[in-house]
Amino acid sequence: MKNTFGNSVATTIYGESHGEAIGVVIDGLAPGIPVDRDFIDAQLTLRRPSGKISTARQEQDEYRLVSGVFEGKTTGTPLCIVIPNTQTRSKDYSATRALARPGHADYTAYCKYHGFEDYRGGGHFSGRITAGLVAAGAIALTALHGKGILIGTHIKCCGGVEDRAFGDLSADITALSTMPFAVLDKAASEEMYTRMEAVAAEGDSIGGLLETAVIGMPAGVGEPWFDTVEGVLSHALFSIPAIKGVQFGDAFDLIDAKGSEYNDPFHMENGKVTVKTNHNGGINGGITNGAPITFRCAVKPTPSIYKEQDTVDFFKNEDAKLQIHGRHDPAIIHRARVVVDSVTALVLCDVLAGRFGTDWLRSNG
Amino acid sequence: MKNTFGNSVATTIYGESHGEAIGVVIDGLAPGIPVDRDFIDAQLTLRRPSGKISTARQEQDEYRLVSGVFEGKTTGTPLCIVIPNTQTRSKDYSATRALARPGHADYTAYCKYHGFEDYRGGGHFSGRITAGLVAAGAIALTALHGKGILIGTHIKCCGGVEDRAFGDLSADITALSTMPFAVLDKAASEEMYTRMEAVAAEGDSIGGLLETAVIGMPAGVGEPWFDTVEGVLSHALFSIPAIKGVQFGDAFDLIDAKGSEYNDPFHMENGKVTVKTNHNGGINGGITNGAPITFRCAVKPTPSIYKEQDTVDFFKNEDAKLQIHGRHDPAIIHRARVVVDSVTALVLCDVLAGRFGTDWLRSNG
Amino acid sequence: MKNTFGNSVATTIYGESHGEAIGVVIDGLAPGIPVDRDFIDAQLTLRRPSGKISTARQEQDEYRLVSGVFEGKTTGTPLCIVIPNTQTRSKDYSATRALARPGHADYTAYCKYHGFEDYRGGGHFSGRITAGLVAAGAIALTALHGKGILIGTHIKCCGGVEDRAFGDLSADITALSTMPFAVLDKAASEEMYTRMEAVAAEGDSIGGLLETAVIGMPAGVGEPWFDTVEGVLSHALFSIPAIKGVQFGDAFDLIDAKGSEYNDPFHMENGKVTVKTNHNGGINGGITNGAPITFRCAVKPTPSIYKEQDTVDFFKNEDAKLQIHGRHDPAIIHRARVVVDSVTALVLCDVLAGRFGTDWLRSNG
Amino acid sequence: MKNTFGNSVATTIYGESHGEAIGVVIDGLAPGIPVDRDFIDAQLTLRRPSGKISTARQEQDEYRLVSGVFEGKTTGTPLCIVIPNTQTRSKDYSATRALARPGHADYTAYCKYHGFEDYRGGGHFSGRITAGLVAAGAIALTALHGKGILIGTHIKCCGGVEDRAFGDLSADITALSTMPFAVLDKAASEEMYTRMEAVAAEGDSIGGLLETAVIGMPAGVGEPWFDTVEGVLSHALFSIPAIKGVQFGDAFDLIDAKGSEYNDPFHMENGKVTVKTNHNGGINGGITNGAPITFRCAVKPTPSIYKEQDTVDFFKNEDAKLQIHGRHDPAIIHRARVVVDSVTALVLCDVLAGRFGTDWLRSNG
Repeated sequence: MKNTFGNSVATTIYGESHGEAIGVVIDGLAPGIPVDRDFIDAQLTLRRPSGKISTARQEQDEYRLVSGVFEGKTTGTPLCIVIPNTQTRSKDYSATRALARPGHADYTAYCKYHGFEDYRGGGHFSGRITAGLVAAGAIALTALHGKGILIGTHIKCCGGVEDRAFGDLSADITALSTMPFAVLDKAASEEMYTRMEAVAAEGDSIGGLLETAVIGMPAGVGEPWFDTVEGVLSHALFSIPAIKGVQFGDAFDLIDAKGSEYNDPFHMENGKVTVKTNHNGGINGGITNGAPITFRCAVKPTPSIYKEQDTVDFFKNEDAKLQIHGRHDPAIIHRARVVVDSVTALVLCDVLAGRFGTDWLRSNG
Repeated sequence: MKNTFGNSVATTIYGESHGEAIGVVIDGLAPGIPVDRDFIDAQLTLRRPSGKISTARQEQDEYRLVSGVFEGKTTGTPLCIVIPNTQTRSKDYSATRALARPGHADYTAYCKYHGFEDYRGGGHFSGRITAGLVAAGAIALTALHGKGILIGTHIKCCGGVEDRAFGDLSADITALSTMPFAVLDKAASEEMYTRMEAVAAEGDSIGGLLETAVIGMPAGVGEPWFDTVEGVLSHALFSIPAIKGVQFGDAFDLIDAKGSEYNDPFHMENGKVTVKTNHNGGINGGITNGAPITFRCAVKPTPSIYKEQDTVDFFKNEDAKLQIHGRHDPAIIHRARVVVDSVTALVLCDVLAGRFGTDWLRSNG
Repeated sequence: MKNTFGNSVATTIYGESHGEAIGVVIDGLAPGIPVDRDFIDAQLTLRRPSGKISTARQEQDEYRLVSGVFEGKTTGTPLCIVIPNTQTRSKDYSATRALARPGHADYTAYCKYHGFEDYRGGGHFSGRITAGLVAAGAIALTALHGKGILIGTHIKCCGGVEDRAFGDLSADITALSTMPFAVLDKAASEEMYTRMEAVAAEGDSIGGLLETAVIGMPAGVGEPWFDTVEGVLSHALFSIPAIKGVQFGDAFDLIDAKGSEYNDPFHMENGKVTVKTNHNGGINGGITNGAPITFRCAVKPTPSIYKEQDTVDFFKNEDAKLQIHGRHDPAIIHRARVVVDSVTALVLCDVLAGRFGTDWLRSNG
Repeated sequence: MKNTFGNSVATTIYGESHGEAIGVVIDGLAPGIPVDRDFIDAQLTLRRPSGKISTARQEQDEYRLVSGVFEGKTTGTPLCIVIPNTQTRSKDYSATRALARPGHADYTAYCKYHGFEDYRGGGHFSGRITAGLVAAGAIALTALHGKGILIGTHIKCCGGVEDRAFGDLSADITALSTMPFAVLDKAASEEMYTRMEAVAAEGDSIGGLLETAVIGMPAGVGEPWFDTVEGVLSHALFSIPAIKGVQFGDAFDLIDAKGSEYNDPFHMENGKVTVKTNHNGGINGGITNGAPITFRCAVKPTPSIYKEQDTVDFFKNEDAKLQIHGRHDPAIIHRARVVVDSVTALVLCDVLAGRFGTDWLRSNG
């Protein structure tokens, strides 16, 4: 399937950048999970563009919960969120529609949808669609929080500036949850932001590295061979525009390590099986071992840049030059991190409901 | 689901390291695809251990095609391959079964299967299971070959030694297809092998980086949002033991690049839309653009080492020391590359059959 | 999964009877299918209650196509339809909510959703939800029509009155497509309607038998073993409230026939393999044989009646008496027939897209 | 998908009538379920042909459990059963292969598989494939039995003879479980058998009606809209060859009933919500209400008959006469009933594991 993900908790997204609305349907969430509109708003705000490193398009994301919520809690039936598009511009996209923006889906969408696609502003491929994932993800995050499972993502690296490593995960995740620019080290944060602004000023764009940690996951979750925790998480994460690489634990970073260095020795800690290191990112054989799940996503630079680019006109089948005008993001990594949290939460809700049953997420067990 | 992958072409695996047999069922392959036993044998040979860098266990993989093949071709109904285990040893695993081998699935399998798992030799988590994927993958590779789609993987990096970059992809893939040790540069190959032997001699283990290229894929294939080509490939690739990271195109390697550097400009070449560079790995917006699909997998060092390790006894819930004896692989990267090809072929068959219908893989179109 | 059906063309529904809106997302429909609002309106009108044999609740079904349609055609990306609820009444359902209406889902929903369900007017279990299926189904019917596939359903039997058998299927289906009360024989139609009014006047309710025919389906479609045409159609049909039995061809009607009577002999007609009789309903071994697909659905009497009934209070766990007030349908069979057509169309689009690829439904092939 | 059914507990079948082996893979069964070979043998015996009303082909069904069982219990990993074909005859089927047997899948398989299908003895469409379902179903039945859930099917009607209605369900199901010819009333049993022999002697064949009851299902199970208990059960049941109709509760039998007659009043019995009648077959709104699940399957007469039939030669595209020789069943209803039990058990295991989690089936809760 295509725009639905998950077996037990299924997320379906819809919408185009300049259509009437975008949104999401979540099906299979346990009944009785609190739906906290303030928290949804807060999450949408973290995703919303701001400052010179973001697009000038400002959507208020005044979403409507049209089904699946009753008296402030999930009913267990499909929860549909509709987010109207209000800031669409009436400009005529049709003049340039056949000029494939490099790095974008214009040409590939044309190959797949044969010209019937809504090409305005990237259509269904626009990052705008992620607002639905964030709204849905907020409810998933609430459900997980009720079970003691917390998720946080920071910008580990951007523009050559590196954030400090995760430390006390509980404290770091709590700090990140309200941080508009998700960099743990204050000096690194400022320097990163400055570099991003500089790239934006050049009319260019920038990517980076996101690092995520999940704490509180029970051991014994994951469905190998094929539905490993790595497999299902990466499957969903790669749907986030600009993510082109996913690694669990240290993977690419310890490519030359030996087994004696990479293996995470087990030991007992407070009566619980624990690992001394976590190079495997909390997952052995595709199943959680109770340690934090850690992964990193490589975010490519936003493909929309103001600089002139070589491309083709795919109607005329001839070479062309492209100069992109209009509103776009010189960086999306700082906005993408809340999307990563959201997608991770939706996937973990699915995995946990599959493992422990449809009621588990609201239970007190 | 767990041990089945794919919607249109579905692969189901079964078996344990020391059970009666392992194997695979492929369902949904187009009827009329040649089933070439010599090629299946050749692929299984590429996966089979050899030399001092592999386990001493020698399975002949004398598989049986028990269904789905008639007069040398696929019937279109489920094709079941049974590969008997013959080289299992009668030694008693039960004495050490509760000593979790670090980096392995022993402890996590125990958490999931509550002690009912077949723990002998890693059970269902053994790399031995990949023999089924390779046998099935050989048929998938044949199907793709008939449509002009070729897949090849080399060891890009191992033990600090780097292979040359892919060059003429068609020639490189052809060369790799019969190469027992998949390194393109002869000097690098020898040095790499030497280092692997040295690590093996230490009783330690080693991982590395695999790089894969797929040529001949039509443009317009992929089912975003969720079933992007990256998403479905990574989902399946992470089921291969030891793979802990997957990137498409350059991802982690160009983490500091700007958009003007990372974007792949389009141009016309022989009347066809082409890219000048391929940092995006042949995929834009989750859909193929007709350029080669390229990706890299981070392979962690094999967790089985002869050196003594700290661990726990998960029956007694106490710290313990572990000294692994018995047959195991100091490296699996050279064997894993044919598994990567196989899994990639199975996934692409699924994706293509979903896109173009169940008959497409055998058609002459 | 639960509220999503289909692999290649997936339909997701959402909404509750007294929530803000109900609706549907269709994903995977080929791009380029005309979206004809007049036809959607006409189909919704066929479903809408009217006369004394229907509920007094009158929803205008002023739906919004919020995504997936561009310049009057499907884009190929998810098409979301939102149908606001406007005629909800403010009455307090909470007083009687624990009195399980016999034949309804009140008690079973309580067992499943633990009291968090939206119980007003049947909530997510209300027949109102079928409006979304009808709107989506209208687009699916248009797609099939473009490929020469037509679907029609009549009330074969109701209140002891029987309609004539299907005759010239093409003519009958065309006639049914605009008939508000789908009975082919005029006299039978009038008598049936009169009996339904009589039952309504008693405060009781009535069911009956729907018979459906599909013409124009290509031979060779269906995915046995499990995804037989019978299997996938029945799976979806049983989701229509009140349908409790489905048979293909003559099944229950020829329970005592011998093989020599039941088998449909093949013969050549105009150069085409055809059957002389159609007791198998156009399906052999789960795969279409090119003859019309025919099936019948048993529709139980609407469970809402005005007569006093015995039941329980499932909060107090004690016996109780129930007297239902409010608006409800003494019969839904005349409204359900367009739901059957719609669901059938959605399922066949899925089956055909899986068989022939995602573009087939709009192609001219 | 095609030959795999189920999300949480997935059953995959493979094999052809005259291939090397047939079989099944069950994935997702809870670990720790006893695998009782005597019970599997007993179930296979109930399915095996015997007497003049069955085919002369006698397969011993000496199956092998090649994976997923360890120390007599399920491991929780895929359980593969291989059942070799031993009684295949070497006769040349190719002479008559293009003569479509009416009521069989010969022609439709040809349309779907384009001549690559294994046509010998019905190939993948042979009833022989159900042996795999019965072997797998035996394990599923054991799992359900451990949770107090029992399933039984009797021949309600065959050759104009009717069995008595179900009475004390627990006693009837127990009696049926070891009854070779599943008719509850002794006189009816003998008369039915006599009529079946008479039809067989004529060279003709016969079908009938199977009635099934499931007791012990918890209330609150089922995933509407689409994955209603009726929907998922019927989906799987229609894969059993010859089943052409499925009804839950009384459906077709009470087509003229009024709501006041059809509704099942609730009342309290021993502190438990119960129904006084069970016209709805234990399911309201697609969800179990705790009453027995009851359904009936219409079984068409076996299409293989010795009488000459009209047909076509689909290679030559011309009319032809067909005289079937060789071994076949004049009736399969007495053998199909254990297949119905098996398929029902597999589906319910899937539904229950999805609802309550992967461990529930072995738990003591």
